[in-house]
Amino acid sequence: MMKLGGELPANESSHKPQLTNAGRPSTVGIEAVNEHGETVPTRIPGEHALTLYLDKREIVTLMTLGTAPESLVLGYLRNQRLVSRLEDIAAVQVDWETDAAVVTTRSGSADMESRLERRTVTSGCGQGTMFGDLMESLDEIALPDDARLDAATLAALLDNVRRHDSIYKEAGAVHGCALAAADGEILMYVEDVGRHNAVDAIAGQMWLHDMAGGDKLFYTTGRLTSEMIIKTAQMGIPFIVSRSGLTGMGHAIADKIGLTVIGRATGKHYLLFTGRHRFDGGAGKKNDHE
Amino acid sequence: MMKLGGELPANESSHKPQLTNAGRPSTVGIEAVNEHGETVPTRIPGEHALTLYLDKREIVTLMTLGTAPESLVLGYLRNQRLVSRLEDIAAVQVDWETDAAVVTTRSGSADMESRLERRTVTSGCGQGTMFGDLMESLDEIALPDDARLDAATLAALLDNVRRHDSIYKEAGAVHGCALAAADGEILMYVEDVGRHNAVDAIAGQMWLHDMAGGDKLFYTTGRLTSEMIIKTAQMGIPFIVSRSGLTGMGHAIADKIGLTVIGRATGKHYLLFTGRHRFDGGAGKKNDHE
Repeated sequence: MMKLGGELPANESSHKPQLTNAGRPSTVGIEAVNEHGETVPTRIPGEHALTLYLDKREIVTLMTLGTAPESLVLGYLRNQRLVSRLEDIAAVQVDWETDAAVVTTRSGSADMESRLERRTVTSGCGQGTMFGDLMESLDEIALPDDARLDAATLAALLDNVRRHDSIYKEAGAVHGCALAAADGEILMYVEDVGRHNAVDAIAGQMWLHDMAGGDKLFYTTGRLTSEMIIKTAQMGIPFIVSRSGLTGMGHAIADKIGLTVIGRATGKHYLLFTGRHRFDGGAGKKNDHE
Repeated sequence: MMKLGGELPANESSHKPQLTNAGRPSTVGIEAVNEHGETVPTRIPGEHALTLYLDKREIVTLMTLGTAPESLVLGYLRNQRLVSRLEDIAAVQVDWETDAAVVTTRSGSADMESRLERRTVTSGCGQGTMFGDLMESLDEIALPDDARLDAATLAALLDNVRRHDSIYKEAGAVHGCALAAADGEILMYVEDVGRHNAVDAIAGQMWLHDMAGGDKLFYTTGRLTSEMIIKTAQMGIPFIVSRSGLTGMGHAIADKIGLTVIGRATGKHYLLFTGRHRFDGGAGKKNDHE
């Protein structure tokens, strides 16, 4: 589910790619039997194979909820660095009859071959990302040091996420990601059967609407692995918040690039891991600058 | 963390591959700041890049907890169908100095090229699996129809999982998988930062010890996507139980191959989705045969 808030810039240009609008219903109804032996109608999330073709070359098959396929494809191409500029993309055409997303570029994708050569399976739970490339790209990232988040805004963000319409609440088995404004207001909320799809769909929307990340917050229900940390930094967002935990490599990378990471965030509790200088916990005891 | 129960067959043959024993500590200690502004020592799971070379060809980089790397590599090769027989593997050598797992086959891997051509990113959360291949392989799978599970054994399994030593309990941010005997006793328990790594490590152990799946139960903390359903069936296990939900494609595939799927399983509640004929809920109302 993709929801757009009112804050999107309106500077749509003629260089924007042509997009289909082929989102699918997010859930399907089935019958299950519960512990009392009763047959209960149950809604479960859809999962669909979507094969991505870039200038007629087959790139990957993504298994997705399918509610925002064009954004997912755009974000995938961006985050995998297969296309460097939005204006290089002429069209993204999603067709569920053939389970295909056909991407046409204006000039052909020059260095795609070399990028496709080295694929990484991140955390057994990634998208065959070019991890080496991602790591190299970290040197180019400068997150704004003057961005700030305080405890009240964090609580507002968590409250907004909790109150948000959610496929998860209805059907389970999905991960959600939210892009929020600096005051905690949710601008986009995307769910997918894979958390990397959800973050890619948000990256695709940000790309399409030329949104900056420096004044935003990023929230995910998923675990904070190295790849989630890297993708957040790639979007230029200085904060990532999750109800789940952080991995060792995620910690090391976040520490190196100075991303502010808050994990295990529930209504009242949280753990501030890295980038502490941007967070004002409001507690009596002052946080040490790490 | 890999734990082996007492039920493993002892018929180690001379054809078993040589393996290193290069498991890493599962957690690292860091400091975080909590909501009271207090600095708290926190343990988080490790996450390490492990690049797999098969006869000197680079295949993939897996991001893993690293506690059972040899089993992970074996299970990955098996589940990706890159090597068809265990006796074709001469050695698996894991070296964390170079973050490499070097696999040597006895004869070279014949049809590897064609298999590597088509890779799928399953659910945005897979391992670049050859989905087409996996789907085709389903026709070859025959799960035993006479296997049975009753509500008391399901409760015992869930209780065993809950009482199990767990990196998750200590450090979060991991998924766990368990292979259990028909009475719910846990034979192996593996956790990893990616749930597909955990299931692959179990598949690797089953392969190594020539264990059949027909009289076993499989448990995962993770969501039941199409790939998890397929991998369970590939291991020949007729039951999969999860505390999480099921996707639409997972449901369709499980229904087609007659796998017994129980989701949303907590202490008292569960939903029996497919393969109902193998499950005796013990409730007054008889389950319909689907």
